Amino acid sequence: MNILAIGPHPDDIEIGCAGTLIKYAQRGHSVFLLLISKGEMGGETEVRYKEQMNAADIIGAKDVFWGGFRDTELLDQGNEIIHTIEAYIKKIQPDFIFVNFFDDTHQDHRTVNRSVLSAARYVRNVMFYEVPTTNNFTPNIFVDIGSVFELKLEALKAHSSQVMKTNIPDLSIIDIARSSAHFRGVQGRIPLAEGFIPERLFITID
Amino acid sequence: MNILAIGPHPDDIEIGCAGTLIKYAQRGHSVFLLLISKGEMGGETEVRYKEQMNAADIIGAKDVFWGGFRDTELLDQGNEIIHTIEAYIKKIQPDFIFVNFFDDTHQDHRTVNRSVLSAARYVRNVMFYEVPTTNNFTPNIFVDIGSVFELKLEALKAHSSQVMKTNIPDLSIIDIARSSAHFRGVQGRIPLAEGFIPERLFITID
Amino acid sequence: MNILAIGPHPDDIEIGCAGTLIKYAQRGHSVFLLLISKGEMGGETEVRYKEQMNAADIIGAKDVFWGGFRDTELLDQGNEIIHTIEAYIKKIQPDFIFVNFFDDTHQDHRTVNRSVLSAARYVRNVMFYEVPTTNNFTPNIFVDIGSVFELKLEALKAHSSQVMKTNIPDLSIIDIARSSAHFRGVQGRIPLAEGFIPERLFITID
Amino acid sequence: MNILAIGPHPDDIEIGCAGTLIKYAQRGHSVFLLLISKGEMGGETEVRYKEQMNAADIIGAKDVFWGGFRDTELLDQGNEIIHTIEAYIKKIQPDFIFVNFFDDTHQDHRTVNRSVLSAARYVRNVMFYEVPTTNNFTPNIFVDIGSVFELKLEALKAHSSQVMKTNIPDLSIIDIARSSAHFRGVQGRIPLAEGFIPERLFITID
Amino acid sequence: MNILAIGPHPDDIEIGCAGTLIKYAQRGHSVFLLLISKGEMGGETEVRYKEQMNAADIIGAKDVFWGGFRDTELLDQGNEIIHTIEAYIKKIQPDFIFVNFFDDTHQDHRTVNRSVLSAARYVRNVMFYEVPTTNNFTPNIFVDIGSVFELKLEALKAHSSQVMKTNIPDLSIIDIARSSAHFRGVQGRIPLAEGFIPERLFITID
Amino acid sequence: MNILAIGPHPDDIEIGCAGTLIKYAQRGHSVFLLLISKGEMGGETEVRYKEQMNAADIIGAKDVFWGGFRDTELLDQGNEIIHTIEAYIKKIQPDFIFVNFFDDTHQDHRTVNRSVLSAARYVRNVMFYEVPTTNNFTPNIFVDIGSVFELKLEALKAHSSQVMKTNIPDLSIIDIARSSAHFRGVQGRIPLAEGFIPERLFITID
Repeated sequence: MNILAIGPHPDDIEIGCAGTLIKYAQRGHSVFLLLISKGEMGGETEVRYKEQMNAADIIGAKDVFWGGFRDTELLDQGNEIIHTIEAYIKKIQPDFIFVNFFDDTHQDHRTVNRSVLSAARYVRNVMFYEVPTTNNFTPNIFVDIGSVFELKLEALKAHSSQVMKTNIPDLSIIDIARSSAHFRGVQGRIPLAEGFIPERLFITID
Repeated sequence: MNILAIGPHPDDIEIGCAGTLIKYAQRGHSVFLLLISKGEMGGETEVRYKEQMNAADIIGAKDVFWGGFRDTELLDQGNEIIHTIEAYIKKIQPDFIFVNFFDDTHQDHRTVNRSVLSAARYVRNVMFYEVPTTNNFTPNIFVDIGSVFELKLEALKAHSSQVMKTNIPDLSIIDIARSSAHFRGVQGRIPLAEGFIPERLFITID
Repeated sequence: MNILAIGPHPDDIEIGCAGTLIKYAQRGHSVFLLLISKGEMGGETEVRYKEQMNAADIIGAKDVFWGGFRDTELLDQGNEIIHTIEAYIKKIQPDFIFVNFFDDTHQDHRTVNRSVLSAARYVRNVMFYEVPTTNNFTPNIFVDIGSVFELKLEALKAHSSQVMKTNIPDLSIIDIARSSAHFRGVQGRIPLAEGFIPERLFITID
Repeated sequence: MNILAIGPHPDDIEIGCAGTLIKYAQRGHSVFLLLISKGEMGGETEVRYKEQMNAADIIGAKDVFWGGFRDTELLDQGNEIIHTIEAYIKKIQPDFIFVNFFDDTHQDHRTVNRSVLSAARYVRNVMFYEVPTTNNFTPNIFVDIGSVFELKLEALKAHSSQVMKTNIPDLSIIDIARSSAHFRGVQGRIPLAEGFIPERLFITID
Repeated sequence: MNILAIGPHPDDIEIGCAGTLIKYAQRGHSVFLLLISKGEMGGETEVRYKEQMNAADIIGAKDVFWGGFRDTELLDQGNEIIHTIEAYIKKIQPDFIFVNFFDDTHQDHRTVNRSVLSAARYVRNVMFYEVPTTNNFTPNIFVDIGSVFELKLEALKAHSSQVMKTNIPDLSIIDIARSSAHFRGVQGRIPLAEGFIPERLFITID
Repeated sequence: MNILAIGPHPDDIEIGCAGTLIKYAQRGHSVFLLLISKGEMGGETEVRYKEQMNAADIIGAKDVFWGGFRDTELLDQGNEIIHTIEAYIKKIQPDFIFVNFFDDTHQDHRTVNRSVLSAARYVRNVMFYEVPTTNNFTPNIFVDIGSVFELKLEALKAHSSQVMKTNIPDLSIIDIARSSAHFRGVQGRIPLAEGFIPERLFITID
């Protein structure tokens, strides 16, 4: 299968669904990443680009695409973003799309979610992941990431310029990822999980 | 895998998820049905029992269990129903449970849904199906039932005493099943589907 | 009374509420249609214009207005669209407005809904209809369209360039309309219905 | 038409929908009241009975029925209450049912609402009204009660033993009724209104 | 503490939370107002400016800031508005922000709410207030405004050009404020209250 | 102030709000605990009683009350439970009540929440906490428990017979508490928090 994960900025995909993507890649599926912006408000563009490429290597992604929009400036460009994502969907033909959830305090995140909702309207499976700025997220789809959790943390550490940028004193994104994985795990009755909300998901019976 | 479908009355399971169950049975999974009541307010107990057993045969179910509660009298016996369902879960060890949705105009349906929510709290996958009395059902999980749709209709026709008991003049449960399958199909972008809302669903990646 | 139905593209109004509009027109009320775009991404502008005009004739509409915005480009022009709709509301003085529902995978649909919410804020009755791309629609207002259902299908067939453009193999918009009418009918306990969600509706007692 | 208003205790109906009922009665429709309990925890049974009968006279109700259940004891008797209400529905054959909303801090209110949801499942129009203990009520159906507002207050005053029993110092149920009518009026853009949430409502076009 | 109240137009803040702000000012906290537009569609800019400054004096606000955006034109400028609000937050360092609720029929109101959600994402306490165009507002946070209610009305009367501009015949914003305060009071079990929905609120225990 | 925390079984209160209660007790407020059942399905009654009393000591509670209902048997006794809680509220006169959230897979938890909703309807502040079986919990009220977190863990460890009874292999309730505190902390932008949903909360301004 072709799996496409979409994130507004570098590191969003890793926080939300790196464990799931690693499992897909390990089973031989083709994982693609699409970053809508380069996250230039959170650090040097060059640095963030390299960090994202390293994280993609750890995940085992087949390719990384860049939307080319400007960090924190996505809000009033929704239509152009939709058309950009539509082009990548046409090219990649994904069976599964993962993107951040709609309800979020960051305007770029809200815009990217709505853009994917539109652009992906004929894609079979569309799933929403969470990041630390997500609001009111109550996942009912779970993936057990116990076997790949350390790799997920490696993918996060690849974003080394961002690890301590959590706006919470002494708390790293690694700490946040660990707590989230346990918290969602408990909801799924296992030690470590990623949680998702489906826009549309098919159960394949065989 | 072991699949357990639970219904308040005979024919509820067939309306809500017979297509999905047939597909599971066809792939060699073990499908079990649990009927909480015998539906004695809707017809002769004997008749309804036989109809349900015939429907189970068409589905390819391995066994049918009966909770023994009285039709239209479930509402204030929730606790006892929970304990009964817990016993069957212990016996069957299901990987998947299917049960009708909570929001429903029929009191028995509301009770059975809440009872399963409690009894199944350590079962991995729990999914809610819809019937004609369900309210506010907005499925985001779909199963393509195109290949088994005629068999689903056969399973419904097995409930021959109920086929015209829809409380809508000249409309049979077959007509309703056909419209629902098309309607949910359109939402899933395919011709014929059953729709579900997950209480909790694991994606297995392999 | 003056009834105003608003649609993002040609054929949206017919899918969502043609049956209701036909009944209003048959009783002598004045029905007006406002199309925000010409639907030029779905076919020749000329063709779609004529199809819409023919559909309006079948409905018995008194007049058809065109907003003049570009198909798939509505998203970031919400403010201008509001002002356009306000002008038509001022001109028509509608007692009832019908418009597609907010939650929809198509960006144009979301924009038109929000624009009407604002533009119509002093209009007495505002009702939301559904189309195939609508999400999470749980209608609690129903209109019995049994007596005008064939006419509704005629109005849909007038959009002949669109009849097979459903993105679902072998499924026409006629098939979809038929399933929807049955499905919503069942919810209202009648054979054929259109379902609505009210933003604001007055019951007139006399 | 036959209109049936159902209340858990004397005065609930008057608070929630007396204005609407008065308008129906004035136009010649047959209004019936069904009180599930006699409200004996809020005063002398005899007194409350007489007050309710006087209020019914002011409303212009054709008949008043009493369910015979005990005030504050409804919660675990839902099934029997459903069967009682079903019997009255069979007798009265109502076109419209009005009952208090589900989300309420009073257990009797929650029970009565759910009981009506079940008992009325084949009644065409079912509408929910609000009382001071209702929670999270966001009405989208409105009735202009300007012409009958003073009569509504008379019907409330008939419950003279209850007028000051609001649990809020110096605030009478008359004061509450006045504020509610204005508050809901503003939401409907008129001076005085009653607001409702529909479980199911048909628009009749003629 | 520093309290920042944000409103799309002059008089929105007074309607939604003047009572609460007056109480904060009376206890010696620093209250700041930020008006995103001058409300020039509702009257002379000069007049509205003076009215707002007078209202601020009555509230006891320490300073008033103006965002400089155009009334009814906020919708497609969300990103610029976010950056403007971020600048004021940086300057004022508020402990509490009050802003109108998201669900509203006025496009400017929706935009301002979403802009504050983003701009204030690292502010500790963010609370939403209601105005007459707000929809679906179900407050669960209350402030008793009994002791400052007359002052709140004075602050509203300072907007003398707006007092009768309610779009409801013979109803002033003073009447609306009075009904709202009683209605929300009843929900909080006191005579007069302002109601809020928290985006994020800390309880300080000492 | 008088603070009353209510839990269906021993250890629910500690999991949900021990940190907050400890802070109240440390500031000299009177904290009371009410346990609806003795949790006899989860261990020896004697043992669980002692563990709860020890936990109450660590919290600094002034007194502990026991409702006397049977573990896993609360569901169909809602009315009696309401009357029991009403009696304790009358006795304690609490300013604040804390109780578990409604949406929960455990039937006892749902019953206790609804019972408190009714019994506490004239209590000023009522707040809902979460436990591991809670569903769809999206807190917007936070308490910083950084200074008392170790004490909270002590209170949990006092329930030594329960520490490993999480139904998740190798995961203790201490682990769960730690992850929850971090997870909710991140949502409140601090390292360690308890999160709540308010039924009704007053802001006191002074």
